[in-house]
Formats: sequence, C-alpha cells, structure tokens
Amino acid sequence: MSKLDLAIRGGTVVTASDTFRADVGVQAGRIVAVAAEVEGATREIDASGLLVLPGGIDSHVHIAQPSGPDVVMADDFASATAAAAAGGNTCIMPFALQQRGTSLRRCVEDYVRQAEGECHIDVSVHLIISDPTPEVLGQELPALLKAGYTSFKVFMTYDDLVLNDRQLLEVFEVARRERALVMVHAEGYDAIKYMTDRLERAGQTSPFFHATSRPELVEREAAHRAISHAELIDVPIMIVHVSGREAMEQIRWAQQRGLKVYAETCPQYLTLTADDLQGLNMEGTKYVCSPPPRDAASQAAIWEGLQQGVFQTFSSDHCPFRYESSEGKLTPKSKTSFRWVPNGIPGIETRLPILFSEGVSAGRISLNRFVELTSTNHAKIYGLYPRKGSIGVGFDADITLWDPHRRETIRQENLHHGADYTPWEGFEVTGWPVMTIARGEVVARDGVIVGKKGAGRILERDISAYAATGEMP
Amino acid sequence: MSKLDLAIRGGTVVTASDTFRADVGVQAGRIVAVAAEVEGATREIDASGLLVLPGGIDSHVHIAQPSGPDVVMADDFASATAAAAAGGNTCIMPFALQQRGTSLRRCVEDYVRQAEGECHIDVSVHLIISDPTPEVLGQELPALLKAGYTSFKVFMTYDDLVLNDRQLLEVFEVARRERALVMVHAEGYDAIKYMTDRLERAGQTSPFFHATSRPELVEREAAHRAISHAELIDVPIMIVHVSGREAMEQIRWAQQRGLKVYAETCPQYLTLTADDLQGLNMEGTKYVCSPPPRDAASQAAIWEGLQQGVFQTFSSDHCPFRYESSEGKLTPKSKTSFRWVPNGIPGIETRLPILFSEGVSAGRISLNRFVELTSTNHAKIYGLYPRKGSIGVGFDADITLWDPHRRETIRQENLHHGADYTPWEGFEVTGWPVMTIARGEVVARDGVIVGKKGAGRILERDISAYAATGEMP
Amino acid sequence: MSKLDLAIRGGTVVTASDTFRADVGVQAGRIVAVAAEVEGATREIDASGLLVLPGGIDSHVHIAQPSGPDVVMADDFASATAAAAAGGNTCIMPFALQQRGTSLRRCVEDYVRQAEGECHIDVSVHLIISDPTPEVLGQELPALLKAGYTSFKVFMTYDDLVLNDRQLLEVFEVARRERALVMVHAEGYDAIKYMTDRLERAGQTSPFFHATSRPELVEREAAHRAISHAELIDVPIMIVHVSGREAMEQIRWAQQRGLKVYAETCPQYLTLTADDLQGLNMEGTKYVCSPPPRDAASQAAIWEGLQQGVFQTFSSDHCPFRYESSEGKLTPKSKTSFRWVPNGIPGIETRLPILFSEGVSAGRISLNRFVELTSTNHAKIYGLYPRKGSIGVGFDADITLWDPHRRETIRQENLHHGADYTPWEGFEVTGWPVMTIARGEVVARDGVIVGKKGAGRILERDISAYAATGEMP
Amino acid sequence: MSKLDLAIRGGTVVTASDTFRADVGVQAGRIVAVAAEVEGATREIDASGLLVLPGGIDSHVHIAQPSGPDVVMADDFASATAAAAAGGNTCIMPFALQQRGTSLRRCVEDYVRQAEGECHIDVSVHLIISDPTPEVLGQELPALLKAGYTSFKVFMTYDDLVLNDRQLLEVFEVARRERALVMVHAEGYDAIKYMTDRLERAGQTSPFFHATSRPELVEREAAHRAISHAELIDVPIMIVHVSGREAMEQIRWAQQRGLKVYAETCPQYLTLTADDLQGLNMEGTKYVCSPPPRDAASQAAIWEGLQQGVFQTFSSDHCPFRYESSEGKLTPKSKTSFRWVPNGIPGIETRLPILFSEGVSAGRISLNRFVELTSTNHAKIYGLYPRKGSIGVGFDADITLWDPHRRETIRQENLHHGADYTPWEGFEVTGWPVMTIARGEVVARDGVIVGKKGAGRILERDISAYAATGEMP
Repeated sequence: MSKLDLAIRGGTVVTASDTFRADVGVQAGRIVAVAAEVEGATREIDASGLLVLPGGIDSHVHIAQPSGPDVVMADDFASATAAAAAGGNTCIMPFALQQRGTSLRRCVEDYVRQAEGECHIDVSVHLIISDPTPEVLGQELPALLKAGYTSFKVFMTYDDLVLNDRQLLEVFEVARRERALVMVHAEGYDAIKYMTDRLERAGQTSPFFHATSRPELVEREAAHRAISHAELIDVPIMIVHVSGREAMEQIRWAQQRGLKVYAETCPQYLTLTADDLQGLNMEGTKYVCSPPPRDAASQAAIWEGLQQGVFQTFSSDHCPFRYESSEGKLTPKSKTSFRWVPNGIPGIETRLPILFSEGVSAGRISLNRFVELTSTNHAKIYGLYPRKGSIGVGFDADITLWDPHRRETIRQENLHHGADYTPWEGFEVTGWPVMTIARGEVVARDGVIVGKKGAGRILERDISAYAATGEMP
Repeated sequence: MSKLDLAIRGGTVVTASDTFRADVGVQAGRIVAVAAEVEGATREIDASGLLVLPGGIDSHVHIAQPSGPDVVMADDFASATAAAAAGGNTCIMPFALQQRGTSLRRCVEDYVRQAEGECHIDVSVHLIISDPTPEVLGQELPALLKAGYTSFKVFMTYDDLVLNDRQLLEVFEVARRERALVMVHAEGYDAIKYMTDRLERAGQTSPFFHATSRPELVEREAAHRAISHAELIDVPIMIVHVSGREAMEQIRWAQQRGLKVYAETCPQYLTLTADDLQGLNMEGTKYVCSPPPRDAASQAAIWEGLQQGVFQTFSSDHCPFRYESSEGKLTPKSKTSFRWVPNGIPGIETRLPILFSEGVSAGRISLNRFVELTSTNHAKIYGLYPRKGSIGVGFDADITLWDPHRRETIRQENLHHGADYTPWEGFEVTGWPVMTIARGEVVARDGVIVGKKGAGRILERDISAYAATGEMP
Repeated sequence: MSKLDLAIRGGTVVTASDTFRADVGVQAGRIVAVAAEVEGATREIDASGLLVLPGGIDSHVHIAQPSGPDVVMADDFASATAAAAAGGNTCIMPFALQQRGTSLRRCVEDYVRQAEGECHIDVSVHLIISDPTPEVLGQELPALLKAGYTSFKVFMTYDDLVLNDRQLLEVFEVARRERALVMVHAEGYDAIKYMTDRLERAGQTSPFFHATSRPELVEREAAHRAISHAELIDVPIMIVHVSGREAMEQIRWAQQRGLKVYAETCPQYLTLTADDLQGLNMEGTKYVCSPPPRDAASQAAIWEGLQQGVFQTFSSDHCPFRYESSEGKLTPKSKTSFRWVPNGIPGIETRLPILFSEGVSAGRISLNRFVELTSTNHAKIYGLYPRKGSIGVGFDADITLWDPHRRETIRQENLHHGADYTPWEGFEVTGWPVMTIARGEVVARDGVIVGKKGAGRILERDISAYAATGEMP
Repeated sequence: MSKLDLAIRGGTVVTASDTFRADVGVQAGRIVAVAAEVEGATREIDASGLLVLPGGIDSHVHIAQPSGPDVVMADDFASATAAAAAGGNTCIMPFALQQRGTSLRRCVEDYVRQAEGECHIDVSVHLIISDPTPEVLGQELPALLKAGYTSFKVFMTYDDLVLNDRQLLEVFEVARRERALVMVHAEGYDAIKYMTDRLERAGQTSPFFHATSRPELVEREAAHRAISHAELIDVPIMIVHVSGREAMEQIRWAQQRGLKVYAETCPQYLTLTADDLQGLNMEGTKYVCSPPPRDAASQAAIWEGLQQGVFQTFSSDHCPFRYESSEGKLTPKSKTSFRWVPNGIPGIETRLPILFSEGVSAGRISLNRFVELTSTNHAKIYGLYPRKGSIGVGFDADITLWDPHRRETIRQENLHHGADYTPWEGFEVTGWPVMTIARGEVVARDGVIVGKKGAGRILERDISAYAATGEMP
C-alpha cells in the first residue's frame, strides 16, 4: 500500500453501532484503514479529544428551487454546500422540481447544470414530480431512475405541486415497478385551503395563523392516506418532516403492522413551537414552514419517536428565504396574509449541533443513534451506502471531527447560508463540528470554509436498500 | 280516558333496556298504557307467547332512486313499504337524491311527491347532496333542515355523487351550523377507480372483481379521512354500512378519543362474503353492493362491533335491482365489466329476521340490544324520538309482534319487495315477525299485507339528539 | 283490576333507554301500570315537574363490618338504610365478611341476623371470602350460592383478607362451576406493603402518604392479574372501585378482546383527589380509602369510561368511620402512620346527587345512562332483575322522585349516616331526590325518613345475568 | 507497530450497522487494524467469500447447574464452551445459582471454581438469586456486583427459585441502587401450579401437557407484573426467553411508554411448537422447556418482535439434559407426569445457524441485525462492551468466519454438547460458522475443536450500559 494521503489520529471513531479509539487512514479520498495506529501520512490531523464521525448527510434540502412568482430562494449551490460543510455535513440531497407543463428530464438537466462546478461537498439530487403525465410516468421517470435519480418526492398539498389520490397511486405504481423510493409531503390540501379561506374571512391573516390553518390532524389524515395508498400498491414510502404525535402514531401503527413506512423529522419539531410564529413586524414569518412547529407535547412525542426508532432520518428541510427581502418572507402579498408567506426555514448549517446538543449532550439519545439518524440511514435509504454513511474501509473519507464539549451560541453572523436570519438565533448548544473533511480534503475548519468550490461532485445513486421488490403484487 | 282502540294482551314487552310481561293499550294511534292488564278495547290482540317489540325502523333504504342511464330501481314506495311492513318494520328512511346541476329542493319535492299516498308505513326522507353549490349550502339546505329534513348523506365515491374533500368540509360546516346529522358513505373514489382500471386492463372483469376493486383498506382510508374532516369541523358523523375490521377500528379509535363518530352496519356484512360474488352466469351480480361483503374474519369483527357498542344502528342499505332485467343487474354494459353492475342488494324485508336469528337466537346479542340496534337508536339518532323507537306511553303504536321460536326459511317467493331475488334465498332463521302494527293499525300479518296503501305518512323530523351543538368551534 | 294503592301522576318516567311522560300505578308494592293516565288510587302523588326514576341500587356498601381490633364501623343496618333512602336509594348490597378461621356460613348467618327487622329499604347480601378452605369452597360456598347469595368478593390486598393467586384461581373455579359473580378488589398486596414500609422508614407517615403507598400502577397490575386469572378460568369478573386510567385501560383492553370483565367506579374517583389527603390535624384521614383518589387526569379518564361504557355500575363503596373517634379514623395507632388509618369513606347518601349533578346536569352523561349506572345494571348484574332496576310492569315499586333543577349543598348536618363527617361537605349539586318510594311505600321525603324500620327485606338473588355458563372450559 | 500476530484477509466485515470488505489485523489478542490491506502477519487466514462477524455471545446458558435431586445437567464448562465455540460463539454467560439457605457468595465461588481451567472460550457469570435474605441483599450482592457480577436473574416460577412480589421488589431496589441489570423469568408460579394440579387430576400427565399447564397468558401476566414492579422501582429489567405475542405485546407497550424494559427470545420460539411435545415413548420430553414453544402464530409474532426492535438479544437458553438417562429427561418421576420432567433443552451450538438461516438467508432480518442480536447487544447490555461485541479497533479478536452460502443439516452426531440429542435433528440451514477465533486464537474450525481447554477466561464485567442510574426515585 502506498503512503497515506491523510491520517486522522487519536480520535474516537463513532459509527451507528460502535464507538472506539482509532486512527483513520485515507488514500485517494477513501478510508483505507481504521487502526490502533496508521502509518505516516502526507498530512496528519490530530483528533485527540474529538469524535470522528461520518460526515453528516442531509437528505432533505431545497436549493435554488423555483418558489413561485417574485420569490427567490436564498441559497444557490455554492452557498448551500458551504453552509452545509460548515455545519458538519459532507453530502446533501436537494430536489430537482418538475414544474407543471414541463418535461421532468429537462427540469433535472437544468437543475444539475446549476450545480456543476459550484459545490463544496457532494450533492445528489432527488426529483419532485408535480405533473405525472403518461410521458413522465412511462418514459422520463424510468429513464431518470436508471440514471441514478432513485428517489422522488410527491406533495399532498401546495397549489402548484399537489397530486390527487389517483396521481399518487400511479406514481406509487411506477415506484414499485422501478424500485424507486418515494418521499411524501403529507398534509391535506383541501383541508388547508378550507381553513385558510375560513381564517382569512375571519381576518385572521397574521403569520401565526399559518399554524392554525394546518393543524396536526390535517397532517395525520394525509399520513394515513399516503400509508393506505402505499399499502394498496405494496410500495415502501418515506414520510418526511413529521411534526408531532398525530402523524407519528399513524406511522408507528403502520410499522407495527409490518408495512414499509419510513419517517423523517427535523430540528424545528424538536425546538420550535407555533408560538414562535407570533411576533411583531412579521417576525413570525421567520418560522413559517410546513408542517408548522407544534407545541411542547409534540416535541416530546418527536423525541419519543427518535428514541424508539419510529424515525429513520433526521434532516433539515432547509428551505431558505431572506427575511428582509421583498423577494423573500416579506413580499407585498405575504404582508396581506400568511397564505402568501413563502414556506420554509433555513437549517442546513444548524441541524447537527441542535440534535447533538439536545439529543446526545442532554442524554436523550446515544452517540450511535446520532450517527445513524444524521448519516448512516440517509446513505442506506437513498442508495449511497456503502459509499457514504460510515467510518469503515472503502467508504468515502467523509468525516466530521466533533468536539463534544464545546459550547457555542448559534448566531446568524457566523453562518454561511444565504438567508439573513436563523430561527435559532441565540440558541446555545454543547457539541460542535470543528472540522469537515470531504473525500479526504478539509472543507471547513472552525467555521471557516477552506475547501474549493467545485470540489463537490454530483452523485448518481443506487437503488435504495429500502426500495420495493419490483414485481407488482 | 275513553275506551282503548286496541289492546295487545299477554305479550312480553321489550325495550332497549327492559323486558317484562305487560298488556299494551292504544288509543288514536299512540300507546297510552303499558299495564299488567289494560281495560277492554275495541280491538284485542292476543300476544301471549310473543315478543312485543317497537316496530323496526330502517334508516337506510333506497327507493325509486335515479340509478344512472338505463337502470331502474326495483322498488317504488308502495312495494318497498309493503315489504318493510311484512319484515316487521313500521318506518323507513329513504333518500331524496340531488342530481348534479339540479336544485336540491326540487329533487326533494319531486321525490316526496312520488311517495304521497303510496306508503303502507311511515316514511321519512334523508337528503343526498351531490352538488353542494353555494345556493344549496347557503339556502336550500338550511331551509330543508328547518323543514324537518334533518339528516343528509354524502358520498366519498361514485362518479355522479362523489364530493371532494373541500366539498365535504363545506358540507360538514353547514351540518354543524344547522345541527344536521351527516351520513357518510366512506370508500375512496380514486383508489377504486385506479383499481378498477387496473383490473380491467388485466381482463379481470367478472362480478367477483368488484370486491377486489375496493378492498377493506380503501374503506378504512375513507373512514379515517371522514373522521379527520369531522374532527376539524367538530361535527358528529354517522359512517354507514361498515363492512369489516379495518374501518371499524378507525371508528372505535375515534370514539375512544371522544369524537362523536357513529356507525351503522348491515346484514350483508354478517352473513355474506366476497365468495358470494363468484358464480356462473353473472349470478355474482346478485351480491354486488358497496362496500362488498368481505370474509369470515370481517364478519367476526362486525359482530364484535355490535356487541361492544361500536355500532349504533343496524340497517338494510336496501337498494334493489332486478336480476333478470336489462334495466337491472344484467344490462348490456354490466356484462362487460363489474364496473357497470348496479351497486346494491335488496334487504328491507329480511334485515330483522337475520339479526334476530344470528344475533339473539344464536346467543350473540341480547333482546334489548336487538331493539336498540333495529329501532330505538334509529329514532334517537334521526330525530324521531320519542315519537318512535320504543314501547312507552306517548309513542306511536308502532309495534311488531315477534315469535322468537318460529323457524322459517327465507324464500324470494314469499317476499314483497320489487326485486326478483333475495341474496338470502334458502337462509334459515329462528324468530319471525308475525304481525306488524303501525300507529295502531295492523299492516301485515303472517306475511300478508293487510294495511292500506296510503296509511303511511311522510314525517318531518326533529334535530337529531346526536347533532352538533350548532356554534362554530 | 282492583283499585290502585298508589298513583304517581304527571312525572317524566326514565328508564335505562327511554324517557316519557306517564303516570305510574302501584298495587301491592309492584308497578302495575305505566299509562297516560292511571285510574284513581288510594294514594296519589303529584310528580309533575319531577323525574320518576327507578330507585337507586347501591351494590357496594359496607355496614357493620368487622374492621380490625378497636375500630368500629359507623353504620348499622338501621342508619345505613335510612341514609340510603334519604339519598334516593331503594336497595343496597352490603357484604357478609368471612373472618379467617371461621365458617363462611356462620358469618353470613350472624350478619343477616343483625339486619333483620332493622332495614328501611331492601337489602341483599354479598359474601367476602377471606379463607377459601376446602370446606368453604367445596360445601359452604355452593350451598350459599344456591340459597341466593350469588355474588362474592375477593381481595388482592389487606392483611386479613388478601388471597394469593392460587386461592384466587380456586375461588374463580368455584364461581365458574356454580355460576356466581366474583367481585375483585384489585390492588397488589406486596407492592403496597413494600411501599408502606419504605415510606415509614423515610418518616413519611402522614395520611397523605396513604395515596403514595398505592399508586395507580399497583392497581393496574392487580387488575391485569385478576383479568388474566379470569381468562385462564374463563369466568366473568367485576372489578370494583376503579380509580383511574391505568386500571381502566386494562379493563377496556380485556373487554375489547371479548373477555367478560365488568367494572365499577365511585363518586370519590370523579370528585376527590389525592390532595384531599393533605390537611392539618389528621383531616386527611377523612379521605383515606382504597384505592385512593388520584388526580384531575384520572377523573377525566373515569368520566371517559362512564361515557364509553367501560363501567357498568356506579356505587358508593360506602365504608363509614367516625372522624372524631378513637374507634374510627383517629385511633392511637392511626396517628402514628397512615398504615393504621381505617380505609373507607361514607358515601351512601351522596352518590346519586353527585353523579346526577356532575354527570347529567353538567352534560356529561344522559339521564338514561344515569339510570343504567345507578340502578338497572346493578339489578341485572347481581340477579335482582326484573324484580328491581326499572320502571315497568311487574317491577317492585321502587321509585325515586327527582327534582332535576333543585340546587342543594351537601352538609353533614343534613345527612343520616352514622359517620360524623362527609368528604363532600359544602359540595354544591344541581338535582336532588325529593321522595323515595320502596315497594310502594314512601320511605323518605325531602330528607326526612318517613318509613318504618323493618320495612326493608333481606333478598335472595337469582344467578347473575352476567354469570359464567357453568361448565369448565 | 510490531508485526501482527494474525491477519484475516479478504472477508466481508459485518458490524451491527455496517458491512464492508476489509482485512482485519490482530495483535496480542486484540483487533488493531481494519484496513483495505493489513501488513504481513505471523499467521494469515484467507477469509475471501466469508463473512467476518463478531463472535457470538450467548448471554443465557445453563451449565453444570444444580437441577434438583437425581437430575444432572448434561454439560460441564469444558463441553459447553467447546460446543459454543463450534457453533460460532466466543463468549457465554452461564448462571451461578444460589440454592436456598446458602450463601450467594459461596455459591458463586463454588461455581467459578468449576469453570477455572476448563473453558475453551471466555465465560462471564450471572447470578441467580433464590433467597434474598437481608444478608444477601445488604452485603453479598453489593459486594458481588462490585466484583464484576453486574447482572442477576430472578424467577417468578419454579418451586426452588420463585420469588414472591415483595422479594422481587426488594431485589429490584438493590438493582437500582447498585446499578445491576435484572433478568426476569416471567411465568406465574401459582397459575402453573394450579393448572398442573388440575391436569394431573384429569390424568393429563404426558409431556404434551407441560405446554397446556403454562399457556401464553400465564407468561403475559408475569411479564406485566414484572414490568409494573420495575416501573414502581424505576429500574430497567430484561425479560428473558419471551415465547409469543402475549408477553411481547406487554413488553412493546412498556417500551412505548418509555419504560426501560428489554427482552430476549430464543431459537425454540421461532422454530418449534407445542406439537413437538407430542410423541411416543416420552419423545416429547426432548422439547420440554419453559416457557414452552407455542404455535405458528406465536412464531410469526416473535419474528415481528425481532424485526421491529422489541427484542434486543437472541440467546439459546441452553439448558441441557440427556434424553436417554435416568438422571436426565427420563427419571422415574418424570415418567409419571410432565411436572417432573426437567425443564430445558440444549441449543448452545445451534443458535447462530438457526437465526442466520431462518433470519438472514430467508430475508427476514439483515446481516447487521443478526450481529446486533447475537453479539453486540449482549456485550452492551451485560457490561462487556467495548471489550467484546464488534469488529473494531481495541475489541478482543473474537471473530467468527461465516460462510453465508453453506448448507448444512443439523445432526446430533456432529454436535459437541453434552446432551444426547438436539431438538433440531435434521433441521436444514443455509449459512454456517466455519471458523471461530477467540482473542486471536482459532478455537474451532469446520466443526472441529482446535483450541485448548483453559484458554477461555472468567471475565468480570462493567456496569451495564442499560443499568439504572443509581439514585432512588
């Protein structure tokens, strides 16, 4: 074996199941040795006192995504991947959104083109299907799946994205046949519209009423419906950004019946509440995302789900808009009603510290569960395993060095994302990523981006280990 | 007190809670005395050895209802009310169906006009809302509710009837405000269409595949959805013709959470299975109804629900078509695919003997529960109580004399309905209605109609005892 | 029919299922007519504006029961039956307690002898088995069951009463074979003793710690254990005085699995909490009963159980001790530790107003459910039906006239029981029993006892309608 | 780093979370490197085509344990550890049983003495507490826990072992204070005795009735009771050898409520049924163990529990008796009634192939879950982690090379245990351990023991990672 490119010495390696002291040796961007002592390397990093974690994978982020007329997302690929890296991540998965009336393939090509040469870390792209025409279902989608776009998302709400039940079933059928993994945004379109109209008629238009317009039961109903459709087709699904007990109980019920229903949750459902949507001067818009944050009891339920294995992944659902911007949270229309406030909050850079601090440091989850929830399961579920997702021989040398004792306060001024605020301004955490290494190269160190734009690749993915078996029932 | 018109002597009076030997005295069509011995009467009936039951109320029947092009229902008001009376009933509740694009009020007027002068027993009319225009929701429906049409049904399936979720919510809102009771046909339209198309593409078009096209989970999903909508609006609903465990468990779950979700089941779900839809020469069409009969495990589940109080009412969902008729089950189109087979089976005359025999005689439910399920709860839920639904002072003298030991075999040749077959041909029962008395007049005796057409009235109803409280949440 | 002895005119008759205006006619202590207008009678009572209810049956009271050395129960049969009558009851069921080492038969004879000639209303006696010797199980118990003592109670706690699991199983086996109904006091002996010892070691001996020593989970465990034993033997059981959600959920679970597990609750679990056991000067002893009152959430759970049919009966568990008495709550030993405080509170006179006010008047339960929970089901479950438990022809004329609008404040000074306090001192109620009629004779009127001591009989009972089927599984 | 003692080349390393191709380097009995290519070593093993698994840990085996008069266990430490090694294990945990009336410390010393110098692989000893005297609870047990005996087992059945509820609570209290992990044999003593007596009276004494005498509900009741006691004390417990759905549902319920209740199951509950206890010539005795095997539905439930994470460990409950022996299954007394048949079956050598074949090869569980269930979790739960339980730097080089494709038929003639039969005679498996390496030394190869007796050590253990937190609640 030729000389190592990199040796990370003296740290505590953590995987989804194990924790032990070891050196890690890297060659050509891959991990080639985990040993009591690896040989000398071209470059050496002292990790003593630090945790050596698989780099975070954030499988649910929105970047440079069309967001309706007059609204612009705050992140492009360069800023988003820089922010992700600063936050301890080595791979993110944004969505190529099909706009209605357009070719899915074309949307993907356009989207990927935006990413090329811009990324600090690896990126792999999910699809969003908003217009499942026979052409899309019969030709484009199968071709894209074969080309490594092995997962796609469907929406049960939003005017421009919602699929009706018939469309969901047809999409699920394709997913089953082609062995794709379907991600589902589960909120009921009609109920939200009904509530929104009712609230507006009552003059209840401030950002706070965004939460009122889509209560937990509306999410629960959609989750149940998605589960039922998946059961009918016999296809696995991933229900994303689950916000509280109501939807979670449906998912647990499905899992216990043996259905392949997976679930994701996000930092906002552990740390924010609907009360954050209150606030003068439209400050509440900073917290407008869907589903909305709920209450303390829901937060407790989500922790329960993380501890008991209801959730497989913990993502950010990063969806950044600038607050002080007429193309962001404060459009002329958004001031007239919560209905027009762009949905989404930034979180790509703060996801890992929040879960580490509130989860691991607070004694709620183990270190191994942290790794599983933030990296390993993302790789396994979305077809990047065993390329990514663990510290082991042959894996990409995507490694985050983590100081478990470092105390930090989250401040917008220290963040790298394109948004001009963070919902966690002033939030104190214990545990912090001090160095992010992507395929053997240091990308971020102590909050400073030291890697090169363009070092990140656009990755094809394999069939999900959790995909359907292929044949029709 | 002036002389009694009628004395029923020596029988065993049964109410929803009590059982005791007593005479019953009737005057001017009402019960005026329940006593160890009532005075002499103009007319005396010896009920010794017989049960004196409140006449059956069948709150779910379809009569003379538009059923699509080229299909004709087999019963008009005369035949249906005769058959009902022969089967031990003293009141039925059919549906005035709004056809899309037409005025609800007009549909009701037309429908009631057909009934006038034709009925052997009392009739009260529910509405079916298929086109909830602002006019209908804002004016017609409130006016009709005030006029005594205090309940209406909505459909979550069928091309010509299905309401989408938004429409359901708006209708529920009106129900809440106006204190109406909503009946819900809970099966998911899109899933059924999807399955039907898939089955037809696979050449699976025989009547049996009607059951395959709408499995229990499709009913369960719709039940969950209806429950969620009702929870959002905070309005009580009645989920009708529940067929098996899946939907039942959703209902039980809702009830245990304190939601006002009521439920109905029918004889077909206790005694038939999907296998009955097999059969040469399109015989399976005789059993085509929706939801379809399921299997033995589902039957057991439905019994459980009857015993444990999940179900409040037991109705027939009588929906009669002639089998040997090109305007009934065997239309030219129905022979090409189950999709076109008219949905519905006759059962108005056999409902009570089937439940009595399989329930009371077989030791599964008590006599009191039989009365509750077949009469008392119908009256309470649909606003006819305390005019109807029990044997007590002041109630209409709607009484069925029942021989609990009489063994009979159900035969089409003995029935009075307009259909040319019964799904229960050859079914043996223990327990039989030997006399039906409506408002003090004998209407049927030993299977012979002795009452006069036109004796039955069209009844306005009060607000349901189970209706919403009126104010918006 | 000869002249009526009594006519109750113009009231609203309420049964467990029905409500209607009617006169009630009585002859020779029985109801002979319920009619729009009964004939003239020797005695007439104007019930206009009042409810005509079946007299309350309290199937769980302790009277003149041996309560350990130096402790004396505060009620004998005369005072207890007077208090019961004043509170709207027409029948009570106390317990003949077998003391260990003594003959069950002898205990019963002694107990019944105390009752003879002393009772204002009818009394029927349950047994308590504390020493299930072969003699008791093989001979005495079967003989007593045949003699009309068709129910007995077993204890899973208390030094002098507790049966171990083997004994419970043997007693259940006899119950199955002889078709008796077993009542179970479900609290775990060992856990309570363990907690009591631990609390005493920690110096936590004040009455409040009585509640700490027997938390809900101890009751839940015992309920589960009793249910399991009953399932093994296949015998119905009645779990008495259920105090909160934990035990209730076990019972509901059992009921849903089709097991014949019945349950009772009491006023203390709807209106008191463990906080009532706080208090200066040993005032907390006034509320010491077992299981102890819990908290507001438990109260809500118990209401849920009453509304949803988990509970069949609502009793007082009247178990009266004087507070200001060295032979009551304040013995020399009881001052040293909660362990020695006599367990039990008085409630025979206040049960009905509390449930009516908090249940019916407050809109939580219907009038019919009130009747079912306080009278009808007691009669059905314990073998007194159809002699008692309803207003119908042939029933004993046990009738309570109830003013639903009368507001009263519960005061010890107005009560008739032998205790010197009531736990509900100052409790305000809406709805009050204004006259109690037992077998046609007025026993109490407006809180004054007008009947004669000795008018009440000692009743044998039939096999419970809820008893086992007899054969061994 | 000096030269490696051993290099295992070219295999596929599997941990509880990861799977990847790597060489493993061993020095001084420990793993020092996991690398794409480790340096040359004194000894090289070609593992190409094989899985490199952490050696199996069997945390539930009975060896040389006193088993009542006239009955002798079929294994001593030498034979048991040889059999374990042949079956792919590198560590076992037998029980030092306290006999009543004796010192626990003395029993442990005697037991450990028997093991010294006899073991082929490492052994660590749990305690069994049968006589929790103040001396035992107050002094011996705390001292033994400090000495590395950090777990102990209690029994809820068996004449000589059963603890009553008070004793269980006191033992749990010590476990909490001293941070020990308690293992619970959950079956209800009294119910089993009652059933046994009843069956014997009915002449139902053949081995088959062993299963009848302890139905699932008896196990469920005990599980619920143990859980309740643990909840009262707030101490974690491990419920061992769970046999079916009834107990499993209690455990799942507890886990979902956030209680620290862990569970173990065994091969017999996946592959055998009560029908195996039928058989001529007392053949049924070969399958007599407690709890008994159940039925196909229970097997399915246990698989569900393994898949969904209800169970943390999969052990053998190896408890070997010779069949053809008057000191084994066929004592003079055991021929008179199942009551006297020694309880237990051999399984130490067949546990891993059975789970691999039925689980991994059959597609029911992943390779990683197999490792977790058979090794990693045992180490974590019982305080051997990170010394044992994974393939990682610093772990003991306890490694099993596994051929996932090898098909074998289980035959007694090939086994090494002391029993003269296996319950799985003729059972065909896919997947087989081809080499067992303990602390770097090959112990077994292709079913041949090549290691030295005495190479195994007696291990002290750390506090369980799953132990209580120590303070009293």
